[in-house]
Amino acid sequence: MSAPLSVALVHFPIRARDGSTITTAVTNVDVHDIARSARTFGCGGYYVVTPIDAQRQIVARILEHWHDGEGKTRIPERGMALARVQAVPLLADAIADLTARHGRPPVVVVTSAADDEACVSFEAMRARLAASDEPHLLVFGTGHGLATSVLDAAHLRLAPIHGVDAYNHLSVRAAAAIILDRLRGR
Amino acid sequence: MSAPLSVALVHFPIRARDGSTITTAVTNVDVHDIARSARTFGCGGYYVVTPIDAQRQIVARILEHWHDGEGKTRIPERGMALARVQAVPLLADAIADLTARHGRPPVVVVTSAADDEACVSFEAMRARLAASDEPHLLVFGTGHGLATSVLDAAHLRLAPIHGVDAYNHLSVRAAAAIILDRLRGR
Repeated sequence: MSAPLSVALVHFPIRARDGSTITTAVTNVDVHDIARSARTFGCGGYYVVTPIDAQRQIVARILEHWHDGEGKTRIPERGMALARVQAVPLLADAIADLTARHGRPPVVVVTSAADDEACVSFEAMRARLAASDEPHLLVFGTGHGLATSVLDAAHLRLAPIHGVDAYNHLSVRAAAAIILDRLRGR
Repeated sequence: MSAPLSVALVHFPIRARDGSTITTAVTNVDVHDIARSARTFGCGGYYVVTPIDAQRQIVARILEHWHDGEGKTRIPERGMALARVQAVPLLADAIADLTARHGRPPVVVVTSAADDEACVSFEAMRARLAASDEPHLLVFGTGHGLATSVLDAAHLRLAPIHGVDAYNHLSVRAAAAIILDRLRGR
């Protein structure tokens, strides 16, 4: 048994450096890198979450290039990864899509670079995923991380990645790769 | 004891999809992401290797922006990561720099997405780094990977990252993050 796992990258609501809530811009490399990591570690879906129509259209254009355009011929592995990507306005839409797909709502697991007493360890989350058949949605933030409203609304919060000292400034692309490897890698 | 570890990202000589040897272009996000991962996991240096002068100047401009320019004020953590980056023409220059810095040549460890009988496992490499005081240089490729001449000239070759199936197409930014976490993460 192994829990169906999907990932979401949230662009709103996001914490800014000054603590205010902002919408960040979609970046091409986040779409590609996290799709490739998600495909490598067997994630069923990758939701790019942004309420801005024009930003979801950017995602659609990237997908089109690699599904149907010249990208498909040039690097077919890229299309395989991007086949599981979709852009949605809100995190609630990703949750609704997974609920429809699996017949029950996913367990929402948020990630953060900040320590919190209620965090679940990587070992415990890995064991949980291996032993469960419930769908799980792993949620990553952009900017300075997910807004408190998203953190507070989740079922579980995963422990942060610690390096060798207090430096704590991985890219979300690197953090997502490390987290998926820790939870699902061989 | 813990071995001094540095990383290099090679843009020449690189394998193209058709097996020929090419020079790839430096990308801004590779410089940033791998610098941040290297800093997180305690690497002493990050060498961006390209024989093209104009490409090394691009790296210099990125570093200048974050060391001395407006980037330093806006996101100081970024400058901390980039402080350990330098652009060099050839991998031999990175090896020479580390030799001068540590008083002896580094053990050169190449990475590849392809399986090879002579690969060292992540467990063995992690144990080696933990028990050694020899400098080590971990070498990443771009494009379709390091040219055979680079693979063959290394002291050690690290095992590839396996996902849940045969799909094998991580970005170098994701692969570097996972490898550094496996070798040095808590």
